[in-house]
Amino acid sequence: MSIVTIQFNNDKQPKYLQLFEHIKKLISGGQLNPGERLPTVRNLSRSLNVNNITVVNAYKQLEIHKYVTAKKGSGYFVSNIKMQKEDTLSSGDLGMSIAPDTINFASATPHPSIFPAESFKECIIEVLERDRGFAFGYQESNGFIPLRNSILEYLARKYNIRAANEENVLIVSGAQQGIDLVGKALLNPGDYVVTENPTYDGAVAVFKSRGARVVGVNMEEDGIDLIDLEKKIRICKPRLIYLMTCYQNPTTVSYSRQKLNQVLQLIRKYNIYAVEDDSMSELNFDNGELTTLKCLDKENTCVIYLKSFSKILMPGLRAGCMIIPDVLVKDFTKIKHNTDLSSSGLIQRALDLYFRTGKWEEHLQYMKEIYRGKYEFMLAQLERLEKLGVKYHRPNGGLYFWISLPKKLSAQDIYNECRANGLVLIPSGVFYELDNKSKDRSLRLSFASSNIEEIRCGMAILEKCLDDTIPAVDIM
Amino acid sequence: MSIVTIQFNNDKQPKYLQLFEHIKKLISGGQLNPGERLPTVRNLSRSLNVNNITVVNAYKQLEIHKYVTAKKGSGYFVSNIKMQKEDTLSSGDLGMSIAPDTINFASATPHPSIFPAESFKECIIEVLERDRGFAFGYQESNGFIPLRNSILEYLARKYNIRAANEENVLIVSGAQQGIDLVGKALLNPGDYVVTENPTYDGAVAVFKSRGARVVGVNMEEDGIDLIDLEKKIRICKPRLIYLMTCYQNPTTVSYSRQKLNQVLQLIRKYNIYAVEDDSMSELNFDNGELTTLKCLDKENTCVIYLKSFSKILMPGLRAGCMIIPDVLVKDFTKIKHNTDLSSSGLIQRALDLYFRTGKWEEHLQYMKEIYRGKYEFMLAQLERLEKLGVKYHRPNGGLYFWISLPKKLSAQDIYNECRANGLVLIPSGVFYELDNKSKDRSLRLSFASSNIEEIRCGMAILEKCLDDTIPAVDIM
Repeated sequence: MSIVTIQFNNDKQPKYLQLFEHIKKLISGGQLNPGERLPTVRNLSRSLNVNNITVVNAYKQLEIHKYVTAKKGSGYFVSNIKMQKEDTLSSGDLGMSIAPDTINFASATPHPSIFPAESFKECIIEVLERDRGFAFGYQESNGFIPLRNSILEYLARKYNIRAANEENVLIVSGAQQGIDLVGKALLNPGDYVVTENPTYDGAVAVFKSRGARVVGVNMEEDGIDLIDLEKKIRICKPRLIYLMTCYQNPTTVSYSRQKLNQVLQLIRKYNIYAVEDDSMSELNFDNGELTTLKCLDKENTCVIYLKSFSKILMPGLRAGCMIIPDVLVKDFTKIKHNTDLSSSGLIQRALDLYFRTGKWEEHLQYMKEIYRGKYEFMLAQLERLEKLGVKYHRPNGGLYFWISLPKKLSAQDIYNECRANGLVLIPSGVFYELDNKSKDRSLRLSFASSNIEEIRCGMAILEKCLDDTIPAVDIM
Repeated sequence: MSIVTIQFNNDKQPKYLQLFEHIKKLISGGQLNPGERLPTVRNLSRSLNVNNITVVNAYKQLEIHKYVTAKKGSGYFVSNIKMQKEDTLSSGDLGMSIAPDTINFASATPHPSIFPAESFKECIIEVLERDRGFAFGYQESNGFIPLRNSILEYLARKYNIRAANEENVLIVSGAQQGIDLVGKALLNPGDYVVTENPTYDGAVAVFKSRGARVVGVNMEEDGIDLIDLEKKIRICKPRLIYLMTCYQNPTTVSYSRQKLNQVLQLIRKYNIYAVEDDSMSELNFDNGELTTLKCLDKENTCVIYLKSFSKILMPGLRAGCMIIPDVLVKDFTKIKHNTDLSSSGLIQRALDLYFRTGKWEEHLQYMKEIYRGKYEFMLAQLERLEKLGVKYHRPNGGLYFWISLPKKLSAQDIYNECRANGLVLIPSGVFYELDNKSKDRSLRLSFASSNIEEIRCGMAILEKCLDDTIPAVDIM
């Protein structure tokens, strides 16, 4: 096997990705050795009878994933692909830019092969035929009106969120933009924000970029610790609290209805806003009731609800929505306008059609079945780790498990060991505000982007790493 | 003619827009009177044999444009459509949300009927067939690599911008997001920003939202006033200056090459960044050389270049690009990630194909011809206003004229008068930082979204308003 033996398959990925995968295998398999020079772009494109650009893009991918190194003026060379320990980690980095042969328990994004690309394409084509140039005009800053209505109808029917009307719905370019808008609308330098601890690091980064101070409150089995929450609210007088009430990231905890009510009472008492970030509530494998803080906020005064379509539909849509309390609607609309004028009209129109034609709920059922299968499979493997002292919560939904390691074990060490053996997962340190030794005890294992075989392999790697490490610790 | 006499045309706009236009005409034409109740959604949809949603959306459009008023529980009523004077104006509001029968010299966006919807649709379909689910995965935060290369090649060939390489290109969701990222990357509360005076109000809003203080420097015929600029740099020590060097908004002035060099010397001397916002340089009707500040920044150290595709291609793409100085690349990538993770991969891939297949340059030629025709037509009408004391610059490019009124005339008054007569344009106050009587002397007239007949009509309205106002002033 050599570079020029590649057989392009028109039904597969783009050619440059196929070439990238091919060369990657040659490198991983040892047919190409560290230090070896790849053919020039011109020669390879001639030999393969493809465009220069195809080869350039394949080489770029290899470079990004550190399989090769570019040397100016002399070409591309196979690099030593031993993994480097990174200086700083974020959950985004971990999920998105791992080497392709590594098993990925870090990413909470499904593999592109299960995206509903074909049926969404139909919606896009229908919209383009229906609306033509109008699909590419400016959209209202707060979003395409029919889509806002589709979403309202869905949230009312499925979540019993009824206090809002069309004006309260704001279409955003993904949940991350929603968090960014919250920061701009509510935070000034020096303001306090309370979050769950641990929490999503991408939200913390936004709050800090507004000059806010972030204070964490510990999690219990049915949601945030209320006593600690009230204490910190009294001391810090925060502008807002940021919560994930369903399958919290990373602890997988869902709030009980009682706790949701208590949180609501607290934020009303102290007159602060709650931001409820919901990307996974639909993935309730037990088909239990879907309860959110927002549906309890019946006067629509204090909960900013933020919904992502990335996990269930497709992340690349860059579409999400917010339900904004009446008093904040004007501010958020203006801020959205200043941020990017509006989100893509074409995507909004296609998404609206996707809702109206029932494709969204159809796809949701399909995704839920797929995820449930992987959830149960990973759970069965996890049970084997109990004998090693590993503990975990059974969320019955969502996209990951949060496991606690036996005492004396460092999650960072296990992460390093797993990574060296071809498995990436996320160590707890990423999700905690402070670098705290006592918090270095958990790992987040996502089953979103791996198939059953990869889950089996990855869990075996984890088991071996734990097995190898535990005696060594006990001897010390 | 009544509501149910509408003839839907399948080759035209979406049905709800056709219905909206139809009812609008009935209202404007007096066939439906103020206070009159529209048919219920159910009745009308039955009579017309269309979906409920079509009627709902048409009614919503009527409501947005203030043709009807919704009364809870009792339906939609024709409103009194006399125009209201608004409390505050922004160029965005003026351009995007005017009543449909008004002639629009405010918007700098082309009418959707001349967008290349069909050829862009072909690119989208090709991408979806080629990349399938991968087109909907997360994209690199700084953008799809092949698109970044397409843009680099274009900027090098057309603008001689050569210092940058792929890493310096950042794909953004439109130019407004680019300005937002600049604010986040460079501005802290209390920092100073220098802008041209007058300038784009949407940029000022972003800088202020970061807590920055904005200082304006007057414009001369070949660009910013250098003496005033240096004085203000010395006093304020700004972090950045924000410039539009080609067909500046709103003055239409383009910088001379000499002035660009002098600006570059100044920002190097005082070690500050320039943000060069370029949305129209391709529209040089005289086919003169395209010179930017960025192409003079040969070490790529101090100019942040920001390019929009909204004016020439389609605003709804929400796609633009930035060229970032080496030292800022890491910061901008991180900030883009925190802002919205990435821009839509589908749109980026389709845009890349649009560039590679030569469609972009083809469309550019087409748009340039259309705009040139409208430019020349408006110019010919403008000449007639000289006898009334109106003065203006001939930009030979871009999308608007900036006209100065004779002494004693207030631009705000003329704006109000024109608006009452069915023409919207933008009075100079919108573009000036301070509410300064001496600045209330100019109007921006855009020919982007009007056709020849509308330009003729609009200019006649303007002439009449000026004619009616001038004697009255002289008598006082």
